[in-house]
Amino acid sequence: MSAQNDNMNDADTLSHFRDSIDNIDAALVFMLAERFKITQAVGEFKASSSLPPADPAREEKQIERLRQLARDAKLDPDFTEKFLRFIIDEVIRHHQQIRDGK
Amino acid sequence: MSAQNDNMNDADTLSHFRDSIDNIDAALVFMLAERFKITQAVGEFKASSSLPPADPAREEKQIERLRQLARDAKLDPDFTEKFLRFIIDEVIRHHQQIRDGK
Repeated sequence: MSAQNDNMNDADTLSHFRDSIDNIDAALVFMLAERFKITQAVGEFKASSSLPPADPAREEKQIERLRQLARDAKLDPDFTEKFLRFIIDEVIRHHQQIRDGK
Repeated sequence: MSAQNDNMNDADTLSHFRDSIDNIDAALVFMLAERFKITQAVGEFKASSSLPPADPAREEKQIERLRQLARDAKLDPDFTEKFLRFIIDEVIRHHQQIRDGK
């Protein structure tokens, strides 16, 4: 096999993987959009019910559950916890903005 | 309506929202697990083909595409870019570990 053919195959292999990654990323974005639609409704509900934007007890339960799901899916539980924290921090920021009428 | 009934309704409303959030989070975790299975294969492929762990040109394309998908889904494009950066940083860390034989 020529060096050029080798390179073509390498490019094909990488491109094949990347197509799958792009599909998954699109699914993640649309799923996140749906999640933020719900947390937006939660933020409005909390503001109208005078509930605080953050709920540490709920967050602790979410983290424990997702760490277990991560183990089931062979995903790093520490990364998964960081991931959830990343999302929740954004949600709390939104809830505070709703509460402050921004 | 008594104060107790109001509280029950509030709890029901919140619980209803949270069930949906929990479902979406499970989907996100399983989708992420699948994404890391693919990037693990990419890491091994890159190491065996002596390709560098990071690919800035590819990352730029991914970010532009996901920012557009975010706009379509009414999700904050800046948050989406931060989200992708968060995932890619973890992937590059894995690729470096594979390359260094860890």
